[in-house]
Amino acid sequence: MKQTLITAVALGLALIFNDLAMAQTTDPIPSWNDGKAKQSIIDFVKKVTKKGSSDYVTPAERIAVFDNDGTLWAEQPMYFQLLFALDRVKALAPEHPEWKDKEPFASLLKGDVKDALAGGEHAILEILMASHAGNTTEEFEKIVKNWIATAKHPKTGRLYTDMVYQPMLEVLTYLRANDFKTYIVSGGGIEFMRPWSEQVYGIPPEQVIGSSIKTKFELRDGIPVLVRLPEINFIDDGAGKPVGINQHIGRRPIAAFGNSDGDLQMLQWTTAGQVPRFALYVHHTDGEREWAYDRDSSIGRLDKGLDEAAAKGWTVVDMKRDWKVIYAPVKR
Amino acid sequence: MKQTLITAVALGLALIFNDLAMAQTTDPIPSWNDGKAKQSIIDFVKKVTKKGSSDYVTPAERIAVFDNDGTLWAEQPMYFQLLFALDRVKALAPEHPEWKDKEPFASLLKGDVKDALAGGEHAILEILMASHAGNTTEEFEKIVKNWIATAKHPKTGRLYTDMVYQPMLEVLTYLRANDFKTYIVSGGGIEFMRPWSEQVYGIPPEQVIGSSIKTKFELRDGIPVLVRLPEINFIDDGAGKPVGINQHIGRRPIAAFGNSDGDLQMLQWTTAGQVPRFALYVHHTDGEREWAYDRDSSIGRLDKGLDEAAAKGWTVVDMKRDWKVIYAPVKR
Repeated sequence: MKQTLITAVALGLALIFNDLAMAQTTDPIPSWNDGKAKQSIIDFVKKVTKKGSSDYVTPAERIAVFDNDGTLWAEQPMYFQLLFALDRVKALAPEHPEWKDKEPFASLLKGDVKDALAGGEHAILEILMASHAGNTTEEFEKIVKNWIATAKHPKTGRLYTDMVYQPMLEVLTYLRANDFKTYIVSGGGIEFMRPWSEQVYGIPPEQVIGSSIKTKFELRDGIPVLVRLPEINFIDDGAGKPVGINQHIGRRPIAAFGNSDGDLQMLQWTTAGQVPRFALYVHHTDGEREWAYDRDSSIGRLDKGLDEAAAKGWTVVDMKRDWKVIYAPVKR
Repeated sequence: MKQTLITAVALGLALIFNDLAMAQTTDPIPSWNDGKAKQSIIDFVKKVTKKGSSDYVTPAERIAVFDNDGTLWAEQPMYFQLLFALDRVKALAPEHPEWKDKEPFASLLKGDVKDALAGGEHAILEILMASHAGNTTEEFEKIVKNWIATAKHPKTGRLYTDMVYQPMLEVLTYLRANDFKTYIVSGGGIEFMRPWSEQVYGIPPEQVIGSSIKTKFELRDGIPVLVRLPEINFIDDGAGKPVGINQHIGRRPIAAFGNSDGDLQMLQWTTAGQVPRFALYVHHTDGEREWAYDRDSSIGRLDKGLDEAAAKGWTVVDMKRDWKVIYAPVKR
């Protein structure tokens, strides 16, 4: 009996050693073409995980933050959460007969999205509040889960969760395999991302940071609920991202990944720390396989960020050149 | 060589099995006297960790939340953070000659704490803002670390971190050993607790939720800083606790520990979930070893909570009867 156990353990050990040997030769991020961008990621991870090195960072401090829209999944022709809001307004219209004569809803319900959004920030805010508030957190979670499981992108016909970037999924997995804690830090809604972030990105709800509306605790027939109010609580974008990071994490990340000027302050905040730091911009250069846009785009504008990345030596990913594939394989 | 390895592994395994055997017979929370309170904690942990049982909860969902003041450390004769604020006002007085003629500062600087606080919430808010805002997050962290390492409690003469409850430290450790994630959810300041919570409680900064003032991102000579503004951001007390839990964690805890009516909504929110839930109130009954107070106390009032605990069968800890010791041993 004891001999059997020892044999089993020896066999187990042999398998473990084999795995370790494999890990050293297997490409950890295979969807990346060889080049400066890929090498910079691997070099950084090796550097901070090498025990005894002056660049070594303890696992507790290995915090990596990722923007979502345009960094982990696509964001054209408009932020996917806005497409969710438009669908939601249509679904709610029967309960709101007054919307027929009230902008931005009137245009929206006629199918004139462009006219509806012509009202700018104010119009968008009205649409967001009408579509996101007025329910409980549990109800909203169900609505999001149902939409994300069924709604299709107008151009690709894919589920939105099938428009996440395969090369970035590999970076997330690679970092976690090296004891990083991976966070989303997005201008998008925190409660819009949490219902699917664990399944799609492997990022649990407590590691999702985003914009939010206020909520209020109530007892309804003795049952506690959190009611979502039509009032902005926090905008997690631009200079708000370091604020959100500090509020939720309470320590400075050592690696940050973004794609737009809205991520610039997050990258500045991350790289201003004293131990080795890493910053990366995804540059949308692939008009064929995805979308090509940067300095002049109204969505995901990357202008100041490109200049600062060049000046500071941050990694800039050329999607067309650096990525073998764009989207993760469709899951059935 | 191979034989040596196998022998070493066999020896290692023997030690592991020995540890496991020990764990089953060793008391996981030895500072608790036998009784209903102790048994309820152990029964709950066994129940939710037993694979195959209908009460089994996956590790990802094993979230436990703890109030801080009066639950993990003492809170008399006033919240320790208020004592920090008073010390801070004295330290800052030379830079504020106008305080000599301005309440609540004038009374405070003359040593009349009672007069200073006679202005109620408004006076306390003025003291908190004067003592907590106007610096960067990094500067404030240093100030807190220095105070917590040196300041002594007026009655016990102990460092404040030597006034944490040994029985509760054991519960934290016991839960974590069973794959729980432990969080602080306190009415106290989030940035007041984070600098020492990991060392004292084993709770990392990203698992501390508390009240906060607003912060603002700025570049100072090209260096990014977060400036602490004299403006309330969030009050994590009472009905604010479920809001804070939802904002930071995004899922419902399965266990909650508090000591006052300010924790009532947190316990309600936690126990309203569907899988097995646990709620515990620490009742301050030991006037000799600590302080005795409940329904009539202005600090840590426990009135409605006592009634609801009785009605719902929540665990109520009688500190005098249930705890062998109060404070953790003084660390040197």
